[in-house]
Amino acid sequence: MKLYDGGRAPNPRRVRIFLAEKGVEVPLVPVDMGALGHRSAEVTALNPMQRLPVLELNDGTVITESVAISRYFEEIYPEPALFGRGAVGKALVEMWQRRVELHLFASVAAAFRHIHPAMIEWEVPQIPAWGEANKPKALAFLDILDRQLATSAFIAGDDYSIADITGLVAIDFFKPARIEMPGHVTHVKRWYDAVASRPSAKA
Amino acid sequence: MKLYDGGRAPNPRRVRIFLAEKGVEVPLVPVDMGALGHRSAEVTALNPMQRLPVLELNDGTVITESVAISRYFEEIYPEPALFGRGAVGKALVEMWQRRVELHLFASVAAAFRHIHPAMIEWEVPQIPAWGEANKPKALAFLDILDRQLATSAFIAGDDYSIADITGLVAIDFFKPARIEMPGHVTHVKRWYDAVASRPSAKA
Repeated sequence: MKLYDGGRAPNPRRVRIFLAEKGVEVPLVPVDMGALGHRSAEVTALNPMQRLPVLELNDGTVITESVAISRYFEEIYPEPALFGRGAVGKALVEMWQRRVELHLFASVAAAFRHIHPAMIEWEVPQIPAWGEANKPKALAFLDILDRQLATSAFIAGDDYSIADITGLVAIDFFKPARIEMPGHVTHVKRWYDAVASRPSAKA
Repeated sequence: MKLYDGGRAPNPRRVRIFLAEKGVEVPLVPVDMGALGHRSAEVTALNPMQRLPVLELNDGTVITESVAISRYFEEIYPEPALFGRGAVGKALVEMWQRRVELHLFASVAAAFRHIHPAMIEWEVPQIPAWGEANKPKALAFLDILDRQLATSAFIAGDDYSIADITGLVAIDFFKPARIEMPGHVTHVKRWYDAVASRPSAKA
């Protein structure tokens, strides 16, 4: 199998961190997203959405979407469990993964894509008012996350999970999105320091 | 257990269809979203995101997010499998569920929430230009979906899955979002007629 990778972009990093936490190595095919390599004929033939990463299995099966690729590896390498254990545990990881993705990750991405001049060819049309409207959405979710992390080691409970990966990658994107981390979310900061210092964060 | 339900809104309907396909009955607690009941103190205490549906288990555990609630029921009632079978099957359902949710369901919802006058208290600030920008995004995804459905009975393959539920609910929201179904997506229409005529679609 091989993983078409997109370097610094958030979604490719989510899968690389997931694989590092699993201790799994997959051959990477680097794609230069800065040169719009994700819109090449080769990538488009694999993924009509023109997005990375893309996992190609040995039989030619193509899996896209960072969370779907991660779930494939969860199924074939179940330990450590990063999607939760048991019906309630799996549901709570999915709940927090979605909350973090839809209310933090997506808001940070929208702020970046709709405001940053480098994104003018990526996001058509850029709507700066929509980018600005997403900054307070991201900050409002941080308050909810701070209350959760006041009583929880990781986002979805006692164990590190895919929700933490989505959260880490989202917060590392605050800087390019020009969102400042507020001072009062002390539980988020304690959690961030913990997840950012894991070896997987360098992936 | 009980399910706080939100009537005609898309996310509550996703879970009701999922339960109907499973043949599972769960006591519903109706919440009047038209009267902003999802922002009541009762719902906010259960779900700080102020969204429906919300599943409350007998031990007080709260699960929110339609896909997370659905996954809980998939775990406790595995048949019929609506999240796929096997590592590849589960990954492909997750891939298509996400593609349909992020590129069709979310686009239709944004068009509705940012343009419709009834949504002015729901989506603050309403940005009509962002609503309009989402209509072509939804239509562009229909073309990709049409190519998939040219060779596939259901969205994620041979079997009905949660991706079909998300797709059905998204397309049924075209009308309030004032998006017209184009004439040329004949495979989407064949699929739509099949899924909309299942008894679960009335849920």
